[in-house]
Amino acid sequence: MKKVGILGGGQLGRMLLQSAANYPVITYVMESKDDCPSAHLCHHFTQGDIRHADDVYNFGKDLDIVTIEIESVSVEGLKRLQEHGVKIYPKPETLEIIRDKAVQKKFYSSNDIPTSPYVITNSRDDVKNNESMFPAVHKSAQGGYDGRGVQVLEDISQLNLAFEGKAVLEKKIDIKKEISIIIGVDNQDKTVIFPPSEMIFDPILNLLEYQLSPANLVEEVLWKVEAVGLSVVRNLNSPGIFAVEMLIDQQDNVFVNETAPRVHNSGHDTIEGNFSSQFDMLWRIMLDLPLGNTKKIMNSALINLIGQDNNPINEDSSALKEILKIENAFLHLYGKKECRPGRKMGHVTILDADRIGLVHVANKIRHIWEGK
Amino acid sequence: MKKVGILGGGQLGRMLLQSAANYPVITYVMESKDDCPSAHLCHHFTQGDIRHADDVYNFGKDLDIVTIEIESVSVEGLKRLQEHGVKIYPKPETLEIIRDKAVQKKFYSSNDIPTSPYVITNSRDDVKNNESMFPAVHKSAQGGYDGRGVQVLEDISQLNLAFEGKAVLEKKIDIKKEISIIIGVDNQDKTVIFPPSEMIFDPILNLLEYQLSPANLVEEVLWKVEAVGLSVVRNLNSPGIFAVEMLIDQQDNVFVNETAPRVHNSGHDTIEGNFSSQFDMLWRIMLDLPLGNTKKIMNSALINLIGQDNNPINEDSSALKEILKIENAFLHLYGKKECRPGRKMGHVTILDADRIGLVHVANKIRHIWEGK
Repeated sequence: MKKVGILGGGQLGRMLLQSAANYPVITYVMESKDDCPSAHLCHHFTQGDIRHADDVYNFGKDLDIVTIEIESVSVEGLKRLQEHGVKIYPKPETLEIIRDKAVQKKFYSSNDIPTSPYVITNSRDDVKNNESMFPAVHKSAQGGYDGRGVQVLEDISQLNLAFEGKAVLEKKIDIKKEISIIIGVDNQDKTVIFPPSEMIFDPILNLLEYQLSPANLVEEVLWKVEAVGLSVVRNLNSPGIFAVEMLIDQQDNVFVNETAPRVHNSGHDTIEGNFSSQFDMLWRIMLDLPLGNTKKIMNSALINLIGQDNNPINEDSSALKEILKIENAFLHLYGKKECRPGRKMGHVTILDADRIGLVHVANKIRHIWEGK
Repeated sequence: MKKVGILGGGQLGRMLLQSAANYPVITYVMESKDDCPSAHLCHHFTQGDIRHADDVYNFGKDLDIVTIEIESVSVEGLKRLQEHGVKIYPKPETLEIIRDKAVQKKFYSSNDIPTSPYVITNSRDDVKNNESMFPAVHKSAQGGYDGRGVQVLEDISQLNLAFEGKAVLEKKIDIKKEISIIIGVDNQDKTVIFPPSEMIFDPILNLLEYQLSPANLVEEVLWKVEAVGLSVVRNLNSPGIFAVEMLIDQQDNVFVNETAPRVHNSGHDTIEGNFSSQFDMLWRIMLDLPLGNTKKIMNSALINLIGQDNNPINEDSSALKEILKIENAFLHLYGKKECRPGRKMGHVTILDADRIGLVHVANKIRHIWEGK
């Protein structure tokens, strides 16, 4: 049986491990905290720093396969493992492109992948000198995650919000729709495409409210989205699971926003909503098994359960009880030790044959959770 | 968060733990071998003997809830835990009725639950003195599992095959169909019924080939089956998950064959085939959460992967690769350390909107697995 290591022990690792138990595999996890969401679900847990090259190398050197559930892993450590003969999903060279948002952006433009116009900035002065980009989005090159390191700059008066270090200043797209598409690539470069998902944002707070799958796209735009997604993963040149986030403007132009070279929040509803989930698919890819079926079983919606306060989430939560009364609402709690406002504590997936019904129930669940 | 212990660490515990990770719960497992299928998927593993009252008591005394995944657990240990204030699923008194097949049979007849005519025998002489029961099935009162402890006696010439100890001698039913129905009972005595499954046997070898869900039953028989199933669980008077196996004769009479007071092999296809699985449902019951939806998502078939030889099952198995090429075939391997002929090593669930297609694919998978 293959020994497979996961770098990072959060909810993505947790769901990967739930799925791993279906396959012939011995699982390993490394994470700094031994009470992280994945620690108790693997065969062997190692306490260590995924950003530290030696820790990564020592963790992986006796394993057959290593994957990541977060981008901040030491690329140097992964490269040493790869030289040592360990198979890495995604390849360290691919992770290296994606980790730095400036490098990632250059990757798109140099490969003729549509993305918003941009310049690389190294200071606020650079931003000031590129007023033609406004209204703009400023993205810190390093370390952005879950919306951090991203700043909308409507006009030059907001210059004080711009990042001082290396960053990407890109023209703000007049967004009609924001979508995500998950693509699997196996060791023989065979690809499978999941139906894209559509993000629904609160128009005032600009916060993700919920996600619908499949995205409501006219056929021509769907083709574009799939073609662009395939172009991204082909040029990234690595097996694995990839989530390509795209923006669609009012003229139905498609722009790649960013790519994650791993299982992704936008694909969590594939657990119940699709025949093969993104987690199931990654095991098939890594174990060199035939790829699964990405088709939808039913329309699905995904609602993140964001921490509202510091109270732990228990079985006696009236919100949980109310949500679980809803037909075909599926709970996934992430087992995080501490609840904090704004922290992703879990998600709910709902299935409905009727798309209007789905939107109705997604809103209902969000309101129950937020205690409105 | 509630602390929940599982007695037994086999595949049923494994699938319970895969599902547990969705809920707010800390999991504990006790089993004699620390490399059993469940050991690595719980928060806390205890090596111990589930048949030993002190081991059971010591394992459970600091937990909130204890459940079982096999009947051979010490009832005395469970009773001591119950007195100590631990909630037990199923109640020890219920397990006591079911564990002894003679007591179980008396439970059916004394509660007017239809079951085949029988006598209790304590020796072969007793069997000989009840020739009117032939053709008969002889069932050892204690320790039968997975077909062991059950002997068909066509006529008195087969007396030498009868059990010497306490056993149930029952009239053999002229079986048209063999079905299983899974019923959940919550702490408020609310019940949920899964659509029954139908067992398909090899007519020559009398071995289970696969299982189809929902069972193909005329409406009137379905009503009978559901009413009989409900009567069994109501009289057992315990919350939990129950699998009631029934025989239907040529005249459409329904007879209870036996009941398992736990998640059951016949319900494994509920993971993909039904909105809420039997495992999901047991967590909802134990955590006092609203019950799930038992409806089918699609027709499902369940094929057990029985060990063919002593070779371990790895990712390079050509049979596994061939099975996973089939659209909507879902693999569940149980992570058993040793493969042995006749041992349940895993199962495959398939989904198909078309019932004829389902039978075709179920047969195909069985043939692939058996190397025919």
